[in-house]
Parts: sequence; C-alpha cells; structure tokens
Amino acid sequence: MTTTDVQDLVEEANATALAQMFAADPVVVDVGRAGDLLPGFADDMVLTSGSPMGWREYTGGQREALIGGALFEGLADDRDSAIAGFDDGSIRVGSCHDHGAVGSLAGIYTASMPVFVVEDRTTGRRGFCNFYEGKEPRRLNYGCYDEDVRERLLHVNNVLAPVVGEAIRRSGGVPLKDLMAKALRMGDELHSRNAAASLLFTREILAALLDMTREGIDGVAETTVHIAENDYFFLRLSMAAAKVTADAASHVSHSTLVTAMAFSCRGFSIRVSGAGDTWFDGPPPVHQGKLFPGYTEDQITWMGGESPITETIGLGGFAQACALPLQGYQGGSADVMLQRNLDMYSITLGENPDYRIPVFDFRGTPTGIDVRKVLETGIMPVMDVGLAGSDGGQIGAGVIRAPRECFEKAMAALSAPEEHEA
Amino acid sequence: MTTTDVQDLVEEANATALAQMFAADPVVVDVGRAGDLLPGFADDMVLTSGSPMGWREYTGGQREALIGGALFEGLADDRDSAIAGFDDGSIRVGSCHDHGAVGSLAGIYTASMPVFVVEDRTTGRRGFCNFYEGKEPRRLNYGCYDEDVRERLLHVNNVLAPVVGEAIRRSGGVPLKDLMAKALRMGDELHSRNAAASLLFTREILAALLDMTREGIDGVAETTVHIAENDYFFLRLSMAAAKVTADAASHVSHSTLVTAMAFSCRGFSIRVSGAGDTWFDGPPPVHQGKLFPGYTEDQITWMGGESPITETIGLGGFAQACALPLQGYQGGSADVMLQRNLDMYSITLGENPDYRIPVFDFRGTPTGIDVRKVLETGIMPVMDVGLAGSDGGQIGAGVIRAPRECFEKAMAALSAPEEHEA
Repeated sequence: MTTTDVQDLVEEANATALAQMFAADPVVVDVGRAGDLLPGFADDMVLTSGSPMGWREYTGGQREALIGGALFEGLADDRDSAIAGFDDGSIRVGSCHDHGAVGSLAGIYTASMPVFVVEDRTTGRRGFCNFYEGKEPRRLNYGCYDEDVRERLLHVNNVLAPVVGEAIRRSGGVPLKDLMAKALRMGDELHSRNAAASLLFTREILAALLDMTREGIDGVAETTVHIAENDYFFLRLSMAAAKVTADAASHVSHSTLVTAMAFSCRGFSIRVSGAGDTWFDGPPPVHQGKLFPGYTEDQITWMGGESPITETIGLGGFAQACALPLQGYQGGSADVMLQRNLDMYSITLGENPDYRIPVFDFRGTPTGIDVRKVLETGIMPVMDVGLAGSDGGQIGAGVIRAPRECFEKAMAALSAPEEHEA
Repeated sequence: MTTTDVQDLVEEANATALAQMFAADPVVVDVGRAGDLLPGFADDMVLTSGSPMGWREYTGGQREALIGGALFEGLADDRDSAIAGFDDGSIRVGSCHDHGAVGSLAGIYTASMPVFVVEDRTTGRRGFCNFYEGKEPRRLNYGCYDEDVRERLLHVNNVLAPVVGEAIRRSGGVPLKDLMAKALRMGDELHSRNAAASLLFTREILAALLDMTREGIDGVAETTVHIAENDYFFLRLSMAAAKVTADAASHVSHSTLVTAMAFSCRGFSIRVSGAGDTWFDGPPPVHQGKLFPGYTEDQITWMGGESPITETIGLGGFAQACALPLQGYQGGSADVMLQRNLDMYSITLGENPDYRIPVFDFRGTPTGIDVRKVLETGIMPVMDVGLAGSDGGQIGAGVIRAPRECFEKAMAALSAPEEHEA
C-alpha cells in the first residue's frame, strides 16, 4: 500500500472508532460483588491500577495497597503472610482493565467489594468501578490500610453499597450521559470535580430512597446524606461510564485513537484502538499541582491511577474549562485552564456531541486522542488528578501530562499492524 | 459645603452602605403565613411588584394577577366583584417592598400565602418571599388565574410549604450566603439560573426530610422530589436573601448606592440608600431576549418584577459570568455574557467578598450600583429575567437594562438631601 492508502485506512478506522465512542450510552443498572461480576476475576486475586506487572515490581504505596487489599479480604492474617502469599503466588495480582474495571489511584479490588455495573445500551458491554471510600485522606486506594480504613471499607460493603444498589434497581437504572452533560454545565469536569454530578445522581434515585426510608430499611437516611454530601462520590460512576465508552471504540484495526490511559508506581501506559488490549508503557507522568498545607513536592508519589479513563473520552482535563473552580483546589488560573483545554483540540479526532463547554459557546469537548496528533504537535494529554504522598493518603491535587514514550511505542507498533491484531 | 466636601461625604456614605451590605448574613429560619408575618399587611390586601400605584393604574397581566389574587384569597366571588372591590377600596393594593417582601414577576401576595422568612443575623432584620408555583408556564405571577392555577397554589399552601417549613425549623435554619457562594461555582447566577442552589438547599434540609419521611408525615417524599427537581425553586430564597442584604445598606444619608430595582406594568423604579424608601420612577426597561418557539417580540409584556433585587446585591446579571449555560435559555454568547458582566464593574462601588466568579479568577462580583457611576458611564444595570406574554404565562427569557431616567431623578433628589431624609 502507498503512504496515502495507509493514511486513508487510518482516517477511516479513526472515524469508525470515534463514532463508536460517541454512540456509547452508559446506564448504571446495578451494584454487585466484584467476585461475582468482574470477568475472569477470582477470590484469590487482588486487582490494581496500571498495565499488568509481576508482584515484585510493585513498590511503595501501590505495594502497600495490594497488601492492604489481601488483608481486608482475609487472604492473609497479617502483613508477612500476605507478602509470602504474593511471593508464592497463592495470592494473585491482576490488572483492573483486564477485568472490565477501572481503579481510582492504587485501584484495589478484592472479591467482596461492591462495584457499580454500568451498561452501554448501544453495545450491551459492561464496565465496573468500585465505591468511593469517603473524605478521610487515609484510604486503601491511597496506599493506606489500618483498622479505621478497614471499618470504612466494611461500612461501604455492608451499608452504603447495598442501599445504593437497591435504589438503582428500584429506579430502573440511571442513564448517565445526560446527567454528566448537565454536570458539565454545573462546574464539574467529572474527574477531579463531581460536586454537581453527585447531587444530580442523588436526585435521580431520590424517590426510591424516600420509598425505602418510609419502609424502614436500615441505613437509607445515612446513605442518602452520604451520597449528597460527598462531592467525589460520583467519580466512580464517571469512571465506569468512561470505561464502557472507551471500550466501545477499542479493537478497530489501524485506528490510532487512544482507548485507555493509566499508570502504576512504575510508569504511565496507554492502549490504542488498533492495537487492541496491548499496553504501551512509558515513564511516570509529569505533574504540576497544589499541595495541601504542610506537604512538599518531594513527598509526591505514584501509586497508580486509572481515572484518566475520563480524559480518554473527553472529560476531566479535556473538559477543564467547565470546572474553573478547580483552580482553587489544584492551582492555576482561569486563563491557564482555558488554554490547556483549548490545546486538547489539537490532539483529538473530534468534538463531543454530548459533552459540551459553556464558556466555549457549547463547543463539544475535545474527544478521541489521536496518537499521530500527539506526536506531531508534541502536546501531551492533560489529566486532572489527586496527588498521593509517600506515606500514603492524599496530599494535594493537580494536573499531569502523559509521557511521549507511550505514544512513540504505540505508533511504532501500529506501523507493524500484523503484530497487534485488533 | 464645597464640591469636594460633598464628594467626600458621598464617598464616606457609600463606603458605609457597601460595608453594611457586605456584612449582611441571611439565614432562612422559617416558613409562615404572609398575613401573619409581613409588616403592615392586612387580610384585605393584595400585594404586587413595583413602586406603589393606585389600582386604576394597573393594566394588562399585572391587573389580571391582582384580580386573580383577590379571587384566590376569597376576597371576591367572581371577577366583576373583585374589580368592584378594588374600585371601591374594600380590596386594597399594596407594594411588596413596603411590606418587607419582594415579588417575582407580578409578585402577588395574599394573606394565606406561605412565605420564606429570611433573617439577617447581623442586623436581625427580616425579608420575605413567597413560593415558586412550579414549571407550568401559566402561573399567577405571570398574570394567569384559573382553576388549575388555583389548585397549584393551594397545593403550595397546604402541602409543599408546610413540609419545607418544618424541615427548615428542624434543621435549625439554613445559612444562605455560603450556599449561594457555592452555587455561583456551580453555574448559577441566582436569578435566572438556580439549578445548583435548589439541589444544595435540598441537601441542607435532607436529613430533616428523611426523618420526617420515616415518621410518616404526609407529603414529604413528594415535596422533597419537587424541590430537587425544580431548578427555579431556590430563586425565592435568593430574592429574600437579597432583600435583607439590600435593606442592610439602606437609609445611609448621602449614599448614592442603589438599594432596590423593580418594575411594574407602568415602568421601572429604583430606590437609593440616601433617599430611604423613596422610589425614582422611569419608563419600562429595555430588553433583549430569546423567546420560546412560537412567540413573537410584540407579545412581550411588562407585568411587574422585583427579582432584580438579586442584581442589586451583585448577583443575577452582575454574576452572569458564573452562569454561561444561560446563553441557551436567554440567548447571547459566552463572550457577550462575560463582557456584560465585566461592564458592571464600571458602575459599582466594590467587589463582593463572598460572591465570586471563577472565570475571572474568583474576582468578587461587581456589587453596590452607584447612581453617579451609572450616569457618568452611561452603562445601565443589566438584569436576567423571565419574559411574560401579553396573554399571560412565560414566553421566554432574556436580559433587561434599567432606564436612565430613574438614575437622573435619584441624583437630582440626592442633590437636595433635605427633601429625602434617609
């Protein structure tokens, strides 16, 4: 084939992939147990964020989080036994994306954990995400595990998740696309800011929650107030919705559209539609953030994160201009945020027909990151994230940039398509 | 006194008035009956928007609304008797502002109507506003009265308001300033857009509502869903909060700060701090709007409106840059809205320390309209409003501008201060 032929092929593939991404229609239909629902998951597994690695490659907070997950699930009685279990393979480490899920920060999944089930009405495909642990900076997904963390996780398992699940089922599921589009008009970008979406979601299941309250079901009032008052509650729904939306665009031969971005303690990785489930790894992301009082730059640590699935579908950093109040949380000015968002149009394949930006006269968010455009322009995808500290816990928030290496490797691989059948 | 002395006196008075406006701390503490709560109100009165006029001066929709109010309250059995009652003075017309209240559009108050009681914790002063009638375009405050309108008003009186009142009392009152500041970060400007504020208010009284639900109190579930689903619900709380905030700045001798803006079917009027309760009247406002499909410009009619009390304290049109999604509802583009909002800094005395605009790097909203600056710059205050049709009902939304004449009259009066003791 000539160069022009190849280009045409790629253009066509990208148009197909992008159309499939736009056609996705995520609806949260249920809450269930990870062990029962996640494809290929097993009771002896602990999932974590980033492209798959062997147990011994995990370090720092992400390693601690894996150990905490094993302890929480009762796969080991103490820290040493957990480490021994991982060492001898009786406790297995898995990668969230390989099981239809996405992990926030360290992104730990164990069998008993409840997950949101988000179904794409267009393809029938499902995506999963587990629950927000609450406002306390010490959380399992930030590499912390102790009795308090355990209590809060159990409370999610035994009180919050069953109530939310019942309310979702009674509501007949909650379509998320319109809700998320509305949240973008209310100051959210659906990654680091979900204040409106959490309230809008509460509203969608409010009638069911009130019925359940009247019936005297335990924990309903508490759960209702919890959802309404936790601005970050909705992130997990945004992530699961983004996962099914991105997956809808995956496995289109020759397409250079990015279908996942994630990182582990080792580095950043991307998946590209035309290369199917292959990960292209690079070094850790570059960051620019604002730390909570009392913390310093050298304490920032990488312990994983798959919430950039939101940027992958045109949210988060790609919708930052919707959420200018974030400048107070993660630093920067309105102009910097607007320009950053505008820059993303240079590296994307289209403008989202559903997710729109009021300050840009309702222009659709830049959607569908194109590996070619990233390499041509040198503009790296921007992501809004929470920052973890070396001793665990959240110590700030900011933006990160994907490293160029991932895109170079992906482009090289796509130029030899027979090696990466989509 | 020399000109410089007078200018110093005015500067000092304005600084005092503005500081008093900023110090106001509105809290909704209760819901009660207008007839019991509004100062100087009586059972034979119907209140309406705008500076006070004789009954015979009311025309069109505002006249129809007054007649509807009399019928709703049972002050007359039919339309002819109502007109006869107004003619012979057995039914009296009053002005909302004279009774501590502010009216939305025609702004009808009758004795049985429930009102929000908003107290300024700084001065102890109270302000009142009645309830939103619901989404149906045919409403009493848009000049419509029939059996359906009556049913909806009775439902407010008998179901919605008692539940909301009980929830507010159980919650120990709801401070509104922080809530409104938060809503500005979530796409509201608290005049034509209150989507976030309505949800945030629901959240504040949610625990009480859930308790009441569990106790089996009638109408609680329905009311909770009503508040959460009616984006305009909060406007009445924003108006009452604005009323006590503006009143806190009133009656400061020599001050040229505007303390109220309102209009009737006849024209637009303002109050100025240094002139106390005197109204300065002008012609109707100039408008620019977007009509609902099927309506034409010549159908737009003025039937009153006191919601510009929100602009008086730096919200609404003066916080338009917070609420860019309004471009879809009332026309215009993001740039036009941003520029309009910026222009208001040229005619105001200060920047609000509490109400801030994310897209302007959290600059405080332009607050405290100065009669002198309006006349010097020729920039007229801008307001976000709903537009009423000549046959009643809402037919669109847009912005209006106050007429220059009001400011000229106010300036003339303040130059002869002995005639208008503050």
